[in-house]
Amino acid sequence: MASRALRSSLAISKTSLAPSLCHARPIALHGHTTYVRHSQTRSISAYGYTQAKALTFQDYGEPPSVLSLHKHSISPPHGDQLTLRFLASPINPADINQIQGVYPSKPTFTTALGTPNPIAVGGNEGVAEVIALGDKAKSAGFKRGDWVIMKAPGFGTWRTHASATSGQLLKLEEHAREGITPIQAGTVSVNPCTAYRMLRDFSLLKEGDWFIQNGANSGVGRAAIQLAREWGLKSVNVIRARKDRAAEDKLKQELKEIGATVVITDSELQSQGIKDMAKEWTNGGKEPISLALNCVNGKAATAMAKLLSSGAHYVTYGAMSKQPLTIPASLLIFKDIHFHGYWVSRWSEQHPEEKKKTVEEVLDLTRRGKFKDMPVDEIKWDWETPGEELVAKVKDTLEGYREGKGVFVFGQT
Amino acid sequence: MASRALRSSLAISKTSLAPSLCHARPIALHGHTTYVRHSQTRSISAYGYTQAKALTFQDYGEPPSVLSLHKHSISPPHGDQLTLRFLASPINPADINQIQGVYPSKPTFTTALGTPNPIAVGGNEGVAEVIALGDKAKSAGFKRGDWVIMKAPGFGTWRTHASATSGQLLKLEEHAREGITPIQAGTVSVNPCTAYRMLRDFSLLKEGDWFIQNGANSGVGRAAIQLAREWGLKSVNVIRARKDRAAEDKLKQELKEIGATVVITDSELQSQGIKDMAKEWTNGGKEPISLALNCVNGKAATAMAKLLSSGAHYVTYGAMSKQPLTIPASLLIFKDIHFHGYWVSRWSEQHPEEKKKTVEEVLDLTRRGKFKDMPVDEIKWDWETPGEELVAKVKDTLEGYREGKGVFVFGQT
Repeated sequence: MASRALRSSLAISKTSLAPSLCHARPIALHGHTTYVRHSQTRSISAYGYTQAKALTFQDYGEPPSVLSLHKHSISPPHGDQLTLRFLASPINPADINQIQGVYPSKPTFTTALGTPNPIAVGGNEGVAEVIALGDKAKSAGFKRGDWVIMKAPGFGTWRTHASATSGQLLKLEEHAREGITPIQAGTVSVNPCTAYRMLRDFSLLKEGDWFIQNGANSGVGRAAIQLAREWGLKSVNVIRARKDRAAEDKLKQELKEIGATVVITDSELQSQGIKDMAKEWTNGGKEPISLALNCVNGKAATAMAKLLSSGAHYVTYGAMSKQPLTIPASLLIFKDIHFHGYWVSRWSEQHPEEKKKTVEEVLDLTRRGKFKDMPVDEIKWDWETPGEELVAKVKDTLEGYREGKGVFVFGQT
Repeated sequence: MASRALRSSLAISKTSLAPSLCHARPIALHGHTTYVRHSQTRSISAYGYTQAKALTFQDYGEPPSVLSLHKHSISPPHGDQLTLRFLASPINPADINQIQGVYPSKPTFTTALGTPNPIAVGGNEGVAEVIALGDKAKSAGFKRGDWVIMKAPGFGTWRTHASATSGQLLKLEEHAREGITPIQAGTVSVNPCTAYRMLRDFSLLKEGDWFIQNGANSGVGRAAIQLAREWGLKSVNVIRARKDRAAEDKLKQELKEIGATVVITDSELQSQGIKDMAKEWTNGGKEPISLALNCVNGKAATAMAKLLSSGAHYVTYGAMSKQPLTIPASLLIFKDIHFHGYWVSRWSEQHPEEKKKTVEEVLDLTRRGKFKDMPVDEIKWDWETPGEELVAKVKDTLEGYREGKGVFVFGQT
């Protein structure tokens, strides 16, 4: 049961063979799920235009200063165009960096949203429903009710509705979205894909092999733990040491419950006995630790590299400590460790088909209860939700106030 | 024309079909070259034993303290054994580190040289002549007069003679040694091989592509410049800035003469305008700089990484600054630079056949005048040369006194 989005009668009559709907209430035509209910509509105009609201910015800067809620209308789709209604869009740290202008992947600034000066829409990840589409988009394999994710970053996902072309979208097949919530589908392209590809694309890990990672309780870290568990890999997981020992133990337990083999703190990682401990875990060193995943940098990241087996690969995908990565020459020359970086945005752009497969495989695990994303903090975004409230939620993420990941969940739009 | 080594009559009559030689003078039977003349012999005993001298050490330590000249005799070879007479053996920095005990590749400690306690022979590179051999060694394709290099490190090459088995040696085919001096053959396995493999095994460089390297006036650096020139590659070469500007300019000119496209100092590399300069060299940035070779580490090594094109490979093979390599996260994540290490010892052990091919290819370039090793400081090692004199020469290398690379050249042994 897919929830049907609000749409104008004209949009539908123009772009599909469905009967013209001449009322302004949301209607569930033949949806597969029932978790979103629409009782009112705000996004219909008299001439088939879809009304939309988006969190936009005209200049780079701190999100609270530059973001504002912009209302505009989307003309009925024709040709290769599709009108989308967003279902769920997360706030990822990279989205904040992008608005600050310090992220290499730039958003699209455009006057297409009816402003005199070009503006960009925040957000890079999310899932949307196709509510109307042109004939060419249909020929490209899309239909009303389809769930789509963005093929590449930079699209702008913090908005109620958007106009897209088929080339910008990846369709989630019916089987892939079955039993999946919008939050699950809307948060699968960044963290789980990052974990998945880093585990698969750098080192040929066989069942029983080990990898080591820091930031193990992050979204990527939790994804890696669960994927590894499914693939028969063992993991050494590093978390930040907490002053509150009980909280630290609780977190260790939590990660073990989702499949972590070993969980240690960054202090333990840098303690003297660590090499002996590692030997114990790995059957006297006979089981190789062939891969490291690093989102921290600094000293603890160097310590992690020292636990790797000869010829291993070390992948950096973040730098939470804001430090560089420091590598002793011996690790390169004598231990033959290879250091790489991973950036899911680049990967997405270069491998859209692989992205679709990866996403669908993770959703399959999700459906079977074998994959849980990190705790989520739902942020309701209804048509009436004031811009200030939404911007405040972005600020919370910026300032690290939130325990779970902030996700906009679109309601009565 | 190979020079014939001194050998005992018994050794020959036992191990080859050559006529028994019952005199104690060195004899050039059918040598191919004439650069070594023996007028006296010191290495013959009455019962077919070859007399040998070797620079050995019993404990790790500073070479001047632990090295001593050890005299011993080698029994006539049988089975798979070969008796070698060394022609030329260089003093490489790694040899020093190995004696100090700080090198991961360990020498072979043995009592086979007639000492009560195990000792090891210094040196890892060199060329020797087969002066006698057992039948099995003959079946393995060796014959008297063959020139051989060591298949792997740890053999001990600072000695007048040695006993070896065929599996420890790589034979230089007749065509490969034609017109080649012992110094050329004895110094080809480390520096030129390192340069060759680093240019070939990490990044797929096409004609016209660029690489950048520091330590450009080192043995490896000069080898890389010349190989690159032969292969149609362009090079940015970084040297240390000199107080003596004239000397600096002279060195720049010298490197350009052997094929360097661009030569800059490490100060120039770290200056503000470097990105614009690099753009100029590379046709507005259209010609990628796809590979970096680093033997320095520290800040200048990081600066070098910043000039690379997206997706490039960065290979570290030394750390002359004794600093680690510091990598900003952005170079890994967004610029997709891959950092590796290269260790010629590991490569030699893993790829003996490739080593033979690489050596022969470099010798071919040498013969055709297209490849010159770095300047050499010949150290004559005759039978009577006192141990103190030889050890003093090792000390010179240890202390960096020498302009060229020190090479033991064996004379009247």
